[in-house]
Amino acid sequence: MSLVVVGSVAYDGVETPHGRIDRMLGGAATYISLAASYFTQVRIVAVVGDDFADEDTELLESRGIDLEGLERVPGKTFFWAGKYTDDMNDRVTLTTDLNVFADFQPKLPESYANARYLLLGNIQPALQRSVRSQMKHLRLAGGDTMNFWISDFREELLKTIKNWDFLLINDHEARQLSGESNLKKAAQKILEMGPHTLVIKRGEYGAMLFRHDSYFIVPGYLLESVFDPTGAGDCFAGGFIGYLAEHGFDLSGDHISRGMLSRAVIYGSVMGSFCCERFGVERFRALTRPEIDARFEEFRTFTHF
Amino acid sequence: MSLVVVGSVAYDGVETPHGRIDRMLGGAATYISLAASYFTQVRIVAVVGDDFADEDTELLESRGIDLEGLERVPGKTFFWAGKYTDDMNDRVTLTTDLNVFADFQPKLPESYANARYLLLGNIQPALQRSVRSQMKHLRLAGGDTMNFWISDFREELLKTIKNWDFLLINDHEARQLSGESNLKKAAQKILEMGPHTLVIKRGEYGAMLFRHDSYFIVPGYLLESVFDPTGAGDCFAGGFIGYLAEHGFDLSGDHISRGMLSRAVIYGSVMGSFCCERFGVERFRALTRPEIDARFEEFRTFTHF
Repeated sequence: MSLVVVGSVAYDGVETPHGRIDRMLGGAATYISLAASYFTQVRIVAVVGDDFADEDTELLESRGIDLEGLERVPGKTFFWAGKYTDDMNDRVTLTTDLNVFADFQPKLPESYANARYLLLGNIQPALQRSVRSQMKHLRLAGGDTMNFWISDFREELLKTIKNWDFLLINDHEARQLSGESNLKKAAQKILEMGPHTLVIKRGEYGAMLFRHDSYFIVPGYLLESVFDPTGAGDCFAGGFIGYLAEHGFDLSGDHISRGMLSRAVIYGSVMGSFCCERFGVERFRALTRPEIDARFEEFRTFTHF
Repeated sequence: MSLVVVGSVAYDGVETPHGRIDRMLGGAATYISLAASYFTQVRIVAVVGDDFADEDTELLESRGIDLEGLERVPGKTFFWAGKYTDDMNDRVTLTTDLNVFADFQPKLPESYANARYLLLGNIQPALQRSVRSQMKHLRLAGGDTMNFWISDFREELLKTIKNWDFLLINDHEARQLSGESNLKKAAQKILEMGPHTLVIKRGEYGAMLFRHDSYFIVPGYLLESVFDPTGAGDCFAGGFIGYLAEHGFDLSGDHISRGMLSRAVIYGSVMGSFCCERFGVERFRALTRPEIDARFEEFRTFTHF
């Protein structure tokens, strides 16, 4: 069933110990959509400038992503540049030029209105809320946020996530949002803010899923080399929601399947791990579903006891 | 089958965000032995001073630990003091008074010579080697080391671990020993140094087990509060080797069971997690085997998919 993805489509400049690319396709909505496209029909809502390259449109189209909601306006596409530390666990932002993204007002094409799944990438919480309210037939809605919204737009953010089924953030954000350094306690506090389900991403250390009555933890996939972690968290989100959409999963119903949620976390981890294997979105030019399913089975092998 | 544990028996002073204890029973051999005692007969080889308290001897005896190899000499027992950072992931050593431990020459009582299992706690590599060579009927031998031996006694250490079945170190030590920052590559290099099996402890993030043809990863147990992580790595070691000794496991034979090694890693994780729940060795005064087995099952529940 189809999935609407809202967020940034951007150009990124990235430097890691493995090299440097001055300008390449990036943005949260790009990574989420590419990852989710292996599981379900994706419909994107985003804005780009008149510098957005045909080859980038073609990559998204080649994955069957619906671009009716990809608005093109005069000006430049959002540009971000960052540099990673040697251990890849930290990065410094060098440039953030919002450009056309500064005035982004997500517009939902009529053909998207009946979609059942919604993934709200990291944008202004009020905008996330406006998209959520335009969709009347949702089975599952949730999204991401970041430190800036947690600290400077807290009330706005709390009003927004109150109506989400799931929140998908990293461990630092979970600690910041809850005011608790212990992740188990942090998770319980966040679940009281609205979402039934919380996914905490821990980078190379894996991910955790919390619900009121249970939790699930998976270690990270052990890559031989991490070329570029940019977008890995968004690819996790895309794999997670993509798998649930593929199976028509309904969190709010009586048929909550813990097993399916756990497998969605694994597919999220799988997609995040592939993302790191090449610079930017490169890995998605050749990645196939059988490779994805094989890595899912690898997770079983190295975690089973 | 019986397990010989060699290492320090000490007094520790510990400060964590939860409080401070000026002097309490500690030392690697203490933690390893207490943890392993839930699984198998433990025989300790260590040295203490004439200040070693009867109540501490009694705690070890209450767990059925054989103290024939616990030498008592005039002078003071090894004393270590340290302070943890707020997130408990780092600690600063405030005091290291080797005292009687400075001249420790491990002496193996005759009654220990036929033991089948050997865990060499973190001491001078040459001493570890001398103990190893005194035991002729071993099924499984291995141990721990630390940054100081890796940097300043590298050749000595390499000669020592060459004949071990397993090496059990943390992620920093694995990177230092191998010269590789990527843990998968680091593990392959270390396995070429001799041990068939490498266990890498990652603190709150869990543990990994590597062999030439496979690996296993488990996330850390999610405690609601970590009182004092001192000894957690040693308790991991005790649970790991203890479980293997309990089942008469033989790494060098034809019957290597990946399942049993994985379960040993889980029991190691279980024992490490209990250790953190109270200051020092306190948790082991009341801990029972059914609690241990219940937590093992919890690991199954939160990692299974």
